Amino acid sequence: MSHPVVPVILSGGAGTRLWPLSREQHPKQLIALLNDDTLLQATARRIAVIEDAQRPIVVCNEEHRFVVAEQLLAIGVTPAAIVLEPMARDTAPAIAAAALEALARCKGGDDPILLVLPSDHVVRNHARFADAVRVASREAGRGHLVAFGVVPTRAEVGYGYIIAGDSTDAAEETRPVERFREKPDAKTAASWIESGHCYWNSGMFVFGARSFLRELDIHAPSIRSAAEKAHEHAVPDLGFLRLDAEAFGQSPAISVDYAVMEHTSTARVVPLDAGWRDVGSWASLAALSPGDEAGNVVRGDAVVQSTRNTFIHGSSRLVATVGVKDLVIVDTPDAVLVAHSNSGQEVKAVVRQLERAGRDEHRTHRRVYRP
Amino acid sequence: MSHPVVPVILSGGAGTRLWPLSREQHPKQLIALLNDDTLLQATARRIAVIEDAQRPIVVCNEEHRFVVAEQLLAIGVTPAAIVLEPMARDTAPAIAAAALEALARCKGGDDPILLVLPSDHVVRNHARFADAVRVASREAGRGHLVAFGVVPTRAEVGYGYIIAGDSTDAAEETRPVERFREKPDAKTAASWIESGHCYWNSGMFVFGARSFLRELDIHAPSIRSAAEKAHEHAVPDLGFLRLDAEAFGQSPAISVDYAVMEHTSTARVVPLDAGWRDVGSWASLAALSPGDEAGNVVRGDAVVQSTRNTFIHGSSRLVATVGVKDLVIVDTPDAVLVAHSNSGQEVKAVVRQLERAGRDEHRTHRRVYRP
Repeated sequence: MSHPVVPVILSGGAGTRLWPLSREQHPKQLIALLNDDTLLQATARRIAVIEDAQRPIVVCNEEHRFVVAEQLLAIGVTPAAIVLEPMARDTAPAIAAAALEALARCKGGDDPILLVLPSDHVVRNHARFADAVRVASREAGRGHLVAFGVVPTRAEVGYGYIIAGDSTDAAEETRPVERFREKPDAKTAASWIESGHCYWNSGMFVFGARSFLRELDIHAPSIRSAAEKAHEHAVPDLGFLRLDAEAFGQSPAISVDYAVMEHTSTARVVPLDAGWRDVGSWASLAALSPGDEAGNVVRGDAVVQSTRNTFIHGSSRLVATVGVKDLVIVDTPDAVLVAHSNSGQEVKAVVRQLERAGRDEHRTHRRVYRP
Repeated sequence: MSHPVVPVILSGGAGTRLWPLSREQHPKQLIALLNDDTLLQATARRIAVIEDAQRPIVVCNEEHRFVVAEQLLAIGVTPAAIVLEPMARDTAPAIAAAALEALARCKGGDDPILLVLPSDHVVRNHARFADAVRVASREAGRGHLVAFGVVPTRAEVGYGYIIAGDSTDAAEETRPVERFREKPDAKTAASWIESGHCYWNSGMFVFGARSFLRELDIHAPSIRSAAEKAHEHAVPDLGFLRLDAEAFGQSPAISVDYAVMEHTSTARVVPLDAGWRDVGSWASLAALSPGDEAGNVVRGDAVVQSTRNTFIHGSSRLVATVGVKDLVIVDTPDAVLVAHSNSGQEVKAVVRQLERAGRDEHRTHRRVYRP
């Protein structure tokens, strides 16, 4: 029995926290936020460093299918399958569908190893990432469900944590998971960091497709059965695989962490120290770039005056600031956001206001013609 | 000898502090900041309440002549003359040229009374304004140079002050000027207010043309002679009166306050309590509108979330704010400004940066076509 590594790229997110750059129809993973690559493209390129990796399975929202296919084509990546979610159901059902598709595509008794990658992460050090995947794949081949635990660099309160037990292998390449913990308060986070036993839960996982489905059966059987029906009645559609909407809709919307990882006794954590960042908010995006001496990060055309710790993401217009600090300013052709750096979560509230008002600036970019 | 009242509207300002809405080619007095009228139009309409007022003489920058003429035409005002300044020389030379033009246009021995009105002020109560003009014109007819002193409502540090002596007329309609004082610090301003002897220097004046030129001769003869030559060699040009550039350029650039009012022994102050405001900065513009319960003043299309004491002036796009306070946000098609409410003076520094960088966003509005 061989264990081919099948990357599973999860591209289902809506990314309202990066509004107004991200919109429902153009979520953050499909935007070139950092360089010429979109986050999805960067994720697909990251796979190239993994030894013996198969072509990826991509799971995305039905609405984004052409953009996803186009962006992968543009960098020469041909997915094994693009699995379309008829509606968002969080990560557990999406991974279950991908696992079933991976199994359907491999030979007889093989158990494909799934490398589950959210499409909105940044990983700077590809070599270390490849090393960690190698270790994780080995553990997955032994039946473990492996989480990548990011070696924390600060007492971050915005992430979930993995509390690890003592290492059982001599090389200390992996550790058993004691438990997953939700976003802590600052004091708790600091004490965990102090202990040396904790990692940030990266949301990247490695496990055998069969192992995963077995654990899903134990801990969340309704997800397993919904995903199975949705996959069984899926319709190939112009190169995409459209999951059956009625069946998929029966699944609860729940993350793989909640549904499986927090409950399984087979979880292990592989420490990852590879310059990982998620791009969950404007503040985290700002933190990815070095600021000038006043702590300002400027993309696009800007004039700053007496300005500190301010992130500016411009588009086609001039952005000028005077006498301000700790702001995030994002300019797009049809909307401009001015937010306090610490107000990341509240950007969602703006999006909800737009929804309630029956507007469309949260859905799509209005076309603005420029001569 | 009769004393016709000739309004002199000064429209020479550049208004860089209201950038990016105001530009060199579209200064603040030519913009509809408060309602459908531009500030120039509002000034011209204010004249209508003055008994026996003649048609106004308008002094403006050569570059703005067509917009000025068009805006006055649009509200049915035909100026007696539009005097064009070849370059900015502050208010004293501009008023001198207007005085000479007023004299040239009146009969024999008449001494026209000039009602000098900057074009970027707001006066809410027209009836009280008309009353004050009546008193001031009477005093001007007696040879006084009259300043309108705005009855102060707070210890404002952004204005110049007039310190008044005790009233000499029974009705206390006017008071002698003890002295003009520059912008004070907060403590000094508070002590002046306490004394009850001070007024804000509104920059609006009333005096006889001959009286003014006589005082100018005494206190600033170089201005008088430059203005006289510039007017003598002025060229009527398509309905405008173009002052001679070489002669006008010889004049020092100096305000009427500095050049004449602070030195003359004939100055009197007429108190004005008529809802006067200048529109010198974004903060002063914001103060003209009642805020919502969180102190926000919003013009245009905006969604605010956890936002306090913030002024938003939008154009065609959505402006969204999250978790901010004490900001001024001004959105225009080619530039957006985000400034602290107290940074009014520093907006000029942005304009200077643009100048130095050889850009044009401070000069004019870039055309942006929208479908």
